[in-house]
Amino acid sequence: MKMYVKTVVALAAFLMVAVISFVLFLSGDSSASSGYTTTGDTGLENFKFVKNIMIWFMLMLVAFLMLFIKKYEWGVALAVLLSAAGSFVVYLAIKQFLFGVSIEEAWNQDLMLMGVICAITVVIAIGCFLGKLKMWQYFVAGILFAPVFLIVEWFLFGIGLEHEGLLHMVFGFNASDAGGSMLVHMCAAYFGLGVAIALREKRAFNEPMYTTTHSVSFVWLASMLLWVLWPSFVTALLPADQVFWGMMVCYLAGIGSIISAWIVCTAIQKKVNPLIYTYAMLAGPVAIGAPLLMIGPWAALVIGLIAGVISALSFIYLHPRLTKAIGALDVMGVHNLHGVAGWFGAIVAVIAIPLYGIDGADSLTNLVGAIGVFAISIALGIVIGFVLKLTRGKFPDEHMFSDDADFIKSEKPAE
Amino acid sequence: MKMYVKTVVALAAFLMVAVISFVLFLSGDSSASSGYTTTGDTGLENFKFVKNIMIWFMLMLVAFLMLFIKKYEWGVALAVLLSAAGSFVVYLAIKQFLFGVSIEEAWNQDLMLMGVICAITVVIAIGCFLGKLKMWQYFVAGILFAPVFLIVEWFLFGIGLEHEGLLHMVFGFNASDAGGSMLVHMCAAYFGLGVAIALREKRAFNEPMYTTTHSVSFVWLASMLLWVLWPSFVTALLPADQVFWGMMVCYLAGIGSIISAWIVCTAIQKKVNPLIYTYAMLAGPVAIGAPLLMIGPWAALVIGLIAGVISALSFIYLHPRLTKAIGALDVMGVHNLHGVAGWFGAIVAVIAIPLYGIDGADSLTNLVGAIGVFAISIALGIVIGFVLKLTRGKFPDEHMFSDDADFIKSEKPAE
Amino acid sequence: MKMYVKTVVALAAFLMVAVISFVLFLSGDSSASSGYTTTGDTGLENFKFVKNIMIWFMLMLVAFLMLFIKKYEWGVALAVLLSAAGSFVVYLAIKQFLFGVSIEEAWNQDLMLMGVICAITVVIAIGCFLGKLKMWQYFVAGILFAPVFLIVEWFLFGIGLEHEGLLHMVFGFNASDAGGSMLVHMCAAYFGLGVAIALREKRAFNEPMYTTTHSVSFVWLASMLLWVLWPSFVTALLPADQVFWGMMVCYLAGIGSIISAWIVCTAIQKKVNPLIYTYAMLAGPVAIGAPLLMIGPWAALVIGLIAGVISALSFIYLHPRLTKAIGALDVMGVHNLHGVAGWFGAIVAVIAIPLYGIDGADSLTNLVGAIGVFAISIALGIVIGFVLKLTRGKFPDEHMFSDDADFIKSEKPAE
Repeated sequence: MKMYVKTVVALAAFLMVAVISFVLFLSGDSSASSGYTTTGDTGLENFKFVKNIMIWFMLMLVAFLMLFIKKYEWGVALAVLLSAAGSFVVYLAIKQFLFGVSIEEAWNQDLMLMGVICAITVVIAIGCFLGKLKMWQYFVAGILFAPVFLIVEWFLFGIGLEHEGLLHMVFGFNASDAGGSMLVHMCAAYFGLGVAIALREKRAFNEPMYTTTHSVSFVWLASMLLWVLWPSFVTALLPADQVFWGMMVCYLAGIGSIISAWIVCTAIQKKVNPLIYTYAMLAGPVAIGAPLLMIGPWAALVIGLIAGVISALSFIYLHPRLTKAIGALDVMGVHNLHGVAGWFGAIVAVIAIPLYGIDGADSLTNLVGAIGVFAISIALGIVIGFVLKLTRGKFPDEHMFSDDADFIKSEKPAE
Repeated sequence: MKMYVKTVVALAAFLMVAVISFVLFLSGDSSASSGYTTTGDTGLENFKFVKNIMIWFMLMLVAFLMLFIKKYEWGVALAVLLSAAGSFVVYLAIKQFLFGVSIEEAWNQDLMLMGVICAITVVIAIGCFLGKLKMWQYFVAGILFAPVFLIVEWFLFGIGLEHEGLLHMVFGFNASDAGGSMLVHMCAAYFGLGVAIALREKRAFNEPMYTTTHSVSFVWLASMLLWVLWPSFVTALLPADQVFWGMMVCYLAGIGSIISAWIVCTAIQKKVNPLIYTYAMLAGPVAIGAPLLMIGPWAALVIGLIAGVISALSFIYLHPRLTKAIGALDVMGVHNLHGVAGWFGAIVAVIAIPLYGIDGADSLTNLVGAIGVFAISIALGIVIGFVLKLTRGKFPDEHMFSDDADFIKSEKPAE
Repeated sequence: MKMYVKTVVALAAFLMVAVISFVLFLSGDSSASSGYTTTGDTGLENFKFVKNIMIWFMLMLVAFLMLFIKKYEWGVALAVLLSAAGSFVVYLAIKQFLFGVSIEEAWNQDLMLMGVICAITVVIAIGCFLGKLKMWQYFVAGILFAPVFLIVEWFLFGIGLEHEGLLHMVFGFNASDAGGSMLVHMCAAYFGLGVAIALREKRAFNEPMYTTTHSVSFVWLASMLLWVLWPSFVTALLPADQVFWGMMVCYLAGIGSIISAWIVCTAIQKKVNPLIYTYAMLAGPVAIGAPLLMIGPWAALVIGLIAGVISALSFIYLHPRLTKAIGALDVMGVHNLHGVAGWFGAIVAVIAIPLYGIDGADSLTNLVGAIGVFAISIALGIVIGFVLKLTRGKFPDEHMFSDDADFIKSEKPAE
């Protein structure tokens, strides 16, 4: 009976979505048949096509970066897909219907890039509370996150040419954050932390998270390929003549954290914890986002070295203290990578702007920007976290960090 | 003794191929040393270079999408490589020697793209009968499939400028199938089903197909990355100014099936069967192939939502009935994704062409095209299936869905 | 106490690197804030951006190609990261400070490409001695390899326009090796073999290297994707109008070795050894490097067919004899793929140059080039191998091919 009710509810919801969309189909889209015409440079369009694919690739890899708890692997994959789908489609809808004019004007490569960047942000954020919600709630979390991301985007940069951002209204400058240290990483970490704080799942501390050789080998694969693809992320929206510079400093920063995270892990814990190293080795690319175009390759190497140290130290020393203090487990240690290295990148930009006299950038704007992103993200994260907590219903202990309730499994019976 | 004979036969076959090829080497190719000159736009050439790589990437991922039976993982990988190699090289040879003039004219990026599209089609098709043949027969299946694909290509679109297709002769129009719903997906599903019908391996129904956490994690990886790379497939042969539109609608359709396949799986079976979901979440991109340039983003979302529903329902309800009716197991459920969603895409195009008055396309042509692809593929599949059945020799039960007979394994002995 | 000392040493080393780099940061880089300007074609710059990413992608996949020993998986991943980081950063530093003028002149897409090609070469090379060193020594091996690679590069081609290579001084020609058969593959194989000879770890022969289904499935994944991405590697530094030709012959050669390696494995050993096949199927792309632009697609297929045969035969017959003769185990069989197929490609080029009258290439130069790369690489490999042996300290049996000493593991305790 219960299953029957669910079936009816789900199909009704599906039909509602289908009918609403079908109206849009019949009204708004017929102009599409006339074909989309690129307004600018075909070469650049093609290049952005490739970057779109690479950033979606990264989004999926984030799932495998978080897939180390053997009894919760498939659950992570599905939660990533659902939260990404929810945020992506709502972000695009808001951009078109609230800020766009016609389909041809609203939809272009940059919109698609911002959509997947919004989606990857929520995918990073759910790392703070994976395994603490029911599966359908990750879809809802994605949907609710899209407006949060738009607020942060508007705060830092404005939306398009017509909607000036808050920072620009106050200081006369937009924030400088070419590679997303603030917009993506800080927003993800503090939104996720906000949700975790609202959930306050004390049980999470007691649940063992056993791994196996291969569950962690998937993490190595994901981390190493994320490192490789990262330049396409930090240069996603750059003009063509700055793309090379962005790639160069991104890789140098990444080399830095590969080296320094290993030194710190080995020096302090004697053996490397792969679930620290595979994350902390990405701290350089996270931190380089804000100062991306302000510094050269060797400075990028130094920033990467320092970011790797800070992130590894956060995993080892800050993580247990912080999670205890707030009473909420940051499951994947998102804050130790994206939060801490994001802050570090933001601060480097605040220092570098006056130091090198960067044109079109303002140090104070960036500082206020970082604080603002922190505040907006954590506050709205807490609000949405309470919504998720209230709608979660019963959540027995054995569902924590386990996808047994979500999937049909067909393992060979023990002989 | 027996092994000695096999060695001699194999080396003789190799030498024959080598000598034949060496004649070509000495005669036809010396002009190649003068170097290949691009006839058109360097930027577009480079873009097609990237797409070639991405589609080969997808081909390999299809192997991992089918790698969930733990005792048949490596076998799937090798069967994919051999069938792809056989079909690719034969397709290129036919195009050059039957339809080409000189090497410089025959060989270009579009030929390479069509070659890998032919190869990926047979790789999808073998999913219907994986584990039911001897390893060398997948190589033969690839070789025999290449002319089948060329017939379907000629039927729908003609071959080059000089060889008008059958549909065009009769109706004055080529089929409209920019993203391959008919050419690739329907052809693969019905060719594969045809082979399976000829084999009629009733034993296949009784063989258990046990999975493990990680054999299915590979499937998640493959499915998620196939989803990501799909736009490069549907836009492979499009002119530059339509590439963005193709990518946009492909991703929107993909978002649709990610959402709706999950709703259907959860609603009907209470828990998600990952071996249904990871396939059905790709139904949107399959279905969007035919109407690719006819519809806008929100219509694409709706098409994806519906395709995900149809595909998931096919796995749950149609699959057991159909396979029982034809007495042949579709091992990987190819028909539920590529067959059913391919048909759906083809029918959407048939409706959209008159609805929106699409230039250069004809509704009836597309309808006859879909029926023709179905008929040609299944008929030639049955013929080739009998060839494979007759040449297979003894095939003991324990070889079914197992690669123990194919590989040397070096696992640690149980202690 | 001991750990405390190590911590201090490590942090001191880190601070030293950081301070040195910071000086560079403050002095050399401030000009960077003026932004990098591309000197040429934006389209080509963007294309090289994509190729940079693809070659880094390949580098990481080489790790997974070597990840089949179940108790040494994570160790391979970390050793790859550390050796790549060490060689990449030292290569870039030497190029800028010894051969460059200003940052703007030194740093461009081609420098980044050569850097990652240097890094991938050492990553291949360590396959000869993985599991025989302490973890930090792979970082040192990377650092020490960078000058070796520069010597080989200078010997074959010279460094930039101002530093004429040795071969050019003597013969008036540079070597012809567009796709790196000599520069990358032979250099990697013989440098690695040189290190292995210096180490002479007889214990390595007795250590069992057990695999599991999935440790080898990762190898299949890596091999298949390396095969796919290979064209970006062989065409990395080609002018735009030769890129298509390079891709075409690379794929045809790859098809050849996919087919012939399987025939040889099956014919000789009855069953396929996946740890031979997944390597030997890459022999075609290795061998095609030197004659890349000299031959056409069908000749490439023949070269691939022969390369696959030679490489598979080397694994089966040459490997046990050679490793016994030199008293050192080539752990991953690097020589059977990169050494043997590299030699074969070099010899094909030596024959093809006079046969087809290739402009700007000289047969004798290429022959001397191949012999020179062999001699330089193995000699410097032996030297560096002794450095590594002397600094290794105690290395107990149980650390051989095991990463238990390197990593914190959190597997579920047996119940």
